[in-house]
Amino acid sequence: MQNVIDFAKGGGLVPVVVQDERSGAVLMLAYMNRESFEHTVATGYATYWSRSRQKLWVKGESSGHRQRVRAIHVDCDGDTVLLRVEQEGGAACHEGYPSCFFRERAGDGWQVVETRVFDPAQVYTK
Amino acid sequence: MQNVIDFAKGGGLVPVVVQDERSGAVLMLAYMNRESFEHTVATGYATYWSRSRQKLWVKGESSGHRQRVRAIHVDCDGDTVLLRVEQEGGAACHEGYPSCFFRERAGDGWQVVETRVFDPAQVYTK
Repeated sequence: MQNVIDFAKGGGLVPVVVQDERSGAVLMLAYMNRESFEHTVATGYATYWSRSRQKLWVKGESSGHRQRVRAIHVDCDGDTVLLRVEQEGGAACHEGYPSCFFRERAGDGWQVVETRVFDPAQVYTK
Repeated sequence: MQNVIDFAKGGGLVPVVVQDERSGAVLMLAYMNRESFEHTVATGYATYWSRSRQKLWVKGESSGHRQRVRAIHVDCDGDTVLLRVEQEGGAACHEGYPSCFFRERAGDGWQVVETRVFDPAQVYTK
């Protein structure tokens, strides 16, 4: 594993931009530490570091909406990763929208510009 | 200005994913504080906070490669912004590539997968 990715700069974490390979839509931003990056490369499915839960987070382990990794890019200064993925189930956001960026600025406020693919209450049943 | 964007979470800064409006390419990741966000909204051109220089950074002020803002999105938990922009000059990266993510993982290494639009030595002359 080459040391191109600068994990030290962000205290062990790098932000990861996640893009739908087919539509080009930006789906979400998450974070990886080295372990989650290596887990992603080894399994072919996106694995992040959950800052709120402080543990490895295999995206889709609860919802079934996993992200199959098609390409991994790193930026010029090595402190950001871009994943191009196939989003299983068609929704990346835990709120049921295709992307987490479902709100767009309109005037002085924000407007929902996507349609829910699933109802979170139906998917996240503990 | 609504308090949808959570600047406090990241110590006053939020990461900003920048996407080319036409091609859908992810161009770069930068950071904004509240002042740079308001400057962006007021001027219609992307303005970030430079973490290395610790000052407002009007993107393209040196290179001329400004980013005209076409849409602003915020994510579900309000801690990331997505800008959809028109990239003037066709290159977002200070290394002269269209995007900062010009390296793609190939095997155990990284491969340059974009072609330079400009020569940095010609553009950044002090």
